[in-house]
Amino acid sequence: MRRGLFVGRFQPFHYGHLASIKQALEECDELIIVIGSAQYSHTFENPFTTGERIEMIRAALLEEGIDLKKIVLVPVPDIGEHSIWVSKVKSLCPSFDVVYTNNSLVRRLFEEEGFQVKSTELYRRDLEMGTAIRERMLRREPWEELVPKSVADYIKKIRGVERLREICRKTD
Amino acid sequence: MRRGLFVGRFQPFHYGHLASIKQALEECDELIIVIGSAQYSHTFENPFTTGERIEMIRAALLEEGIDLKKIVLVPVPDIGEHSIWVSKVKSLCPSFDVVYTNNSLVRRLFEEEGFQVKSTELYRRDLEMGTAIRERMLRREPWEELVPKSVADYIKKIRGVERLREICRKTD
Amino acid sequence: MRRGLFVGRFQPFHYGHLASIKQALEECDELIIVIGSAQYSHTFENPFTTGERIEMIRAALLEEGIDLKKIVLVPVPDIGEHSIWVSKVKSLCPSFDVVYTNNSLVRRLFEEEGFQVKSTELYRRDLEMGTAIRERMLRREPWEELVPKSVADYIKKIRGVERLREICRKTD
Amino acid sequence: MRRGLFVGRFQPFHYGHLASIKQALEECDELIIVIGSAQYSHTFENPFTTGERIEMIRAALLEEGIDLKKIVLVPVPDIGEHSIWVSKVKSLCPSFDVVYTNNSLVRRLFEEEGFQVKSTELYRRDLEMGTAIRERMLRREPWEELVPKSVADYIKKIRGVERLREICRKTD
Amino acid sequence: MRRGLFVGRFQPFHYGHLASIKQALEECDELIIVIGSAQYSHTFENPFTTGERIEMIRAALLEEGIDLKKIVLVPVPDIGEHSIWVSKVKSLCPSFDVVYTNNSLVRRLFEEEGFQVKSTELYRRDLEMGTAIRERMLRREPWEELVPKSVADYIKKIRGVERLREICRKTD
Amino acid sequence: MRRGLFVGRFQPFHYGHLASIKQALEECDELIIVIGSAQYSHTFENPFTTGERIEMIRAALLEEGIDLKKIVLVPVPDIGEHSIWVSKVKSLCPSFDVVYTNNSLVRRLFEEEGFQVKSTELYRRDLEMGTAIRERMLRREPWEELVPKSVADYIKKIRGVERLREICRKTD
Repeated sequence: MRRGLFVGRFQPFHYGHLASIKQALEECDELIIVIGSAQYSHTFENPFTTGERIEMIRAALLEEGIDLKKIVLVPVPDIGEHSIWVSKVKSLCPSFDVVYTNNSLVRRLFEEEGFQVKSTELYRRDLEMGTAIRERMLRREPWEELVPKSVADYIKKIRGVERLREICRKTD
Repeated sequence: MRRGLFVGRFQPFHYGHLASIKQALEECDELIIVIGSAQYSHTFENPFTTGERIEMIRAALLEEGIDLKKIVLVPVPDIGEHSIWVSKVKSLCPSFDVVYTNNSLVRRLFEEEGFQVKSTELYRRDLEMGTAIRERMLRREPWEELVPKSVADYIKKIRGVERLREICRKTD
Repeated sequence: MRRGLFVGRFQPFHYGHLASIKQALEECDELIIVIGSAQYSHTFENPFTTGERIEMIRAALLEEGIDLKKIVLVPVPDIGEHSIWVSKVKSLCPSFDVVYTNNSLVRRLFEEEGFQVKSTELYRRDLEMGTAIRERMLRREPWEELVPKSVADYIKKIRGVERLREICRKTD
Repeated sequence: MRRGLFVGRFQPFHYGHLASIKQALEECDELIIVIGSAQYSHTFENPFTTGERIEMIRAALLEEGIDLKKIVLVPVPDIGEHSIWVSKVKSLCPSFDVVYTNNSLVRRLFEEEGFQVKSTELYRRDLEMGTAIRERMLRREPWEELVPKSVADYIKKIRGVERLREICRKTD
Repeated sequence: MRRGLFVGRFQPFHYGHLASIKQALEECDELIIVIGSAQYSHTFENPFTTGERIEMIRAALLEEGIDLKKIVLVPVPDIGEHSIWVSKVKSLCPSFDVVYTNNSLVRRLFEEEGFQVKSTELYRRDLEMGTAIRERMLRREPWEELVPKSVADYIKKIRGVERLREICRKTD
Repeated sequence: MRRGLFVGRFQPFHYGHLASIKQALEECDELIIVIGSAQYSHTFENPFTTGERIEMIRAALLEEGIDLKKIVLVPVPDIGEHSIWVSKVKSLCPSFDVVYTNNSLVRRLFEEEGFQVKSTELYRRDLEMGTAIRERMLRREPWEELVPKSVADYIKKIRGVERLREICRKTD
């Protein structure tokens, strides 16, 4: 049994995340999805609560036909101390064999602790994709094409775009 | 769609927890299982890490034939401030309709925030069951009969009883 | 203008606190009342929130005819580090000239920082009085005689005794 | 009895705050004034301690002839987690019926928890006013006209402008 | 170059600590002395600040003729999460090759992270020795024989016994 | 016996720090070196852990022939509350008579608590020197001339420049 670990903030969950998860699931029997910055919400960087992000991820994986039994979702708070963050992740997550990321800092931190780290080709673009989606939301431009339909539906249901605009009004 | 929420520390997961979860699943489509005191481990009260507790719960539910797709596991740390704990739970969890517990404090806190709380008949006995299991482990008495076989197997695999004895040695 | 400082947890506010406050007001123009352990509630030691404690204190002082304009209420959280607690109090409170307490630790901490500390004759008995009141509440014994009428009325209005019993049920 | 709640940082207290407080007091019997970001001081954003801010607010309200008995001052620290901040405010403050603010985020957070929120026409300008005052202090421009005389006197007494310049020297 | 690590609370530094340090220095070129529970003071368990403990340790090692150049003192706060404590120690300390302890929990935590742990024969007795010294101080019994003369002199200079008695007065 | 205190982040230790330390040691018998922002690492502002910084400082002082017996290294975490930071430093450090700094904020905070503060002529330039070194490392320009040889050797041994570049890759 091979278990992978994938880290994201999922603000919101988008097609880049989905591609990375699919790639990881081709090589692993189970995948831990760490929801980073778990304590934050109601900011431009992190508009959605962890509870909302869990709902998005589950809906998107279900829509895509990915077996939820193979997925372990684990919220991990930012602790602000990079040198002990991997230890925190290890404490909160089931054991894992490989880490999937293209983020340089995440790669570095896990490698310093002796983990195998593999690139997800789309991750870096993903990072930018999350920011791009939130900026489109603020500018009233189309963003729905960048996320699975179930995610777009969920965001509309909770009036997420209105929230983002209200909490960022000073940036208007 | 009706979603319930059940809170436990799962140190370790035992038959009392299992009975409560089955009861809740009879009335709900999905069940959020909050893993409380998530940041603690390596003490008599909380010997196992959250990662280990997730592995136990998943193994037990799988053994019992419970559909993991209906389950949402969410670790929640102790924040030491009872008056804002329900707010923390709401932030970390998907929305829920009903809370299952027999613990007086948990019941009180959720009721003060307006939630419907239902009793799980076995919960109170469960609380004592967790302590009883850990005490049996310390005294080298049989404890395996109180937990699902997959949980006993996992605890043996990670040499959990030895850990408990070592971290409690001063109480010998 | 002479300003005093008096520290308590006010769980609940009782006649011992009142006597100390009156004594301090005889010697000072203004009195800062620090509400200690401000972040705690819903425990046997600290059943009431800071908001509830503020309502009790204001009601009791009003009932007693004490001029609220001379009083400055300041909640101060427990920070768990005694050596910096006085510094925290100084940061959160207006400047003060004298501290009123009979608690040995509080006296010691303020004296180490160079403050004048005066005894409130009744304070020590007060400490015991708070515990005594909560124990009477648990045992369904009369407790109302130990607190001002307005405090008893407020506790009844928020059903405080019921809360205390529920959160302490395991001690039944 | 109707109680309102008004949130500010009061760095320093100025005429915008005063106008908002007066507006709120026309509609409420008592007003809770939350001193936000209570733990911060000695920065450009938050030069004054909570204790100093309490002294400013009390002096200004007294100067203005506002009855201090109707005012409840409550320092509330930044906890960095927006989703539980309203719960923290509720725990630290007496119960309240209406919130006064023009800040979009504060409005949103209280509305998500079901509170009535009313606009204080001048609040938004106030936000800018605080920053403007501190910038004038740095640039040695007149700032006294933007705050009540008692506040200007207090800031001079504690040599607040000198403090601001010293802690911001790198921005010279 | 071989570097060892020794953990203690040093409340106060006594002959048991000294024996352990001497044993470790026979096998190592340099020794890191971790001052645990660094944020605590003014309690029965931890009466002395970290600053005071540093003064004690340096005085005792100097008195004993131990070369201070070979010693690295590192205060480490209690973080309350055992599973990440070793990671915190690794972040705060220079790299080390071997850990000296007889404490079961410390041994376990370092062994789980793959470190070599060696017993210091006297450590367990030491643990009891610290408590015994503080209890003797409270009961006005002789305690000086259990600590180096320089430590006894320092405790007297800062009037440490008086502090301990004052902060523990309720246990009289 | 006169003891001084010098504060720095030492990211990395450079010739500016060395000059300040030498100046302070001319006037003091012992010098406490506070390693500030102790909990941070793996960022552009704070790339090195406290453990690594301790190794750098010890190596540089040894190289320079400074007697390590006169030096007390004390890591102090950022607590984010300037008004209690000096109190935290006092708790963690042996008592001291004079503070050496050219940083305006540090000077102000210690002076508000009544300490004598002396300027180290080079400190301000030092602050810029740390940033300049890290920027040179990022831009692959020579930086070794700004730090003692032993520090440059240590940074190369732990591949510190590679770390800095990896964790800052998004700034490329």
